[in-house]
Amino acid sequence: MRPSHVEHIGIAVTSLEETMPVFELLTGSKCYSIEEVADQKVKTAFFKVGETKIELLEATCAESPIAKFIEKNGGRGGVHHIAFNVESVAEALEEAKKAGIRLIDVQPRKGAENLNIAFLHPKSTCGVLFEFCEQP
Amino acid sequence: MRPSHVEHIGIAVTSLEETMPVFELLTGSKCYSIEEVADQKVKTAFFKVGETKIELLEATCAESPIAKFIEKNGGRGGVHHIAFNVESVAEALEEAKKAGIRLIDVQPRKGAENLNIAFLHPKSTCGVLFEFCEQP
Repeated sequence: MRPSHVEHIGIAVTSLEETMPVFELLTGSKCYSIEEVADQKVKTAFFKVGETKIELLEATCAESPIAKFIEKNGGRGGVHHIAFNVESVAEALEEAKKAGIRLIDVQPRKGAENLNIAFLHPKSTCGVLFEFCEQP
Repeated sequence: MRPSHVEHIGIAVTSLEETMPVFELLTGSKCYSIEEVADQKVKTAFFKVGETKIELLEATCAESPIAKFIEKNGGRGGVHHIAFNVESVAEALEEAKKAGIRLIDVQPRKGAENLNIAFLHPKSTCGVLFEFCEQP
């Protein structure tokens, strides 16, 4: 695999409403999309910096992975995951698996913005949660 | 400010040697530079994904900010900071300060790869450590 770019950086936040003005300032741009991903129990807000999106993630319920992340992080937000854009998520997963990397998703599934996505297990990638994304 | 792109993502790791093969796989590229930044008590290894660098950070001593980060993170690595490329770090700092964002560096200083850099305080930016970078 050779990812073309960092597709997005997912940042867990306690409140989209409170956080969005900070990211409007930091990115020098307005949020261009707000989306709820029911599957992942999150509400997302997107900003753009060059070819990379900043994806703010707010939990929609206590069982959301984002709620658990924030709880484990002492009640604070933080970088939740980094997503690399690849030509084929299925092929990238296959290559990662062959190299001994543990997978969370063994096959691509649908994510925000209708992308085909899959997550790798952070235990295999230095504590960082990585995602592969493929344009639909 | 309107950052042109995500200049780099800084990832704290316990060992560059052990981690580099994973990042060679994930980025589909070889590490293109290893550098010691004495000032910050870190050894860095750089990879490239599109316009963004992945900067692995290993502590060179127990007093390194990276050693402290890993200790606080339960002995694991993780995303340490995100750096936005701006035209002028001094102007970006001024703008951030005016908006009420707490600064770690009140003026630009030299970082890895000879960039002019400055950090913002994560308390003001949702728990995420942000850096501004300016090409020298």
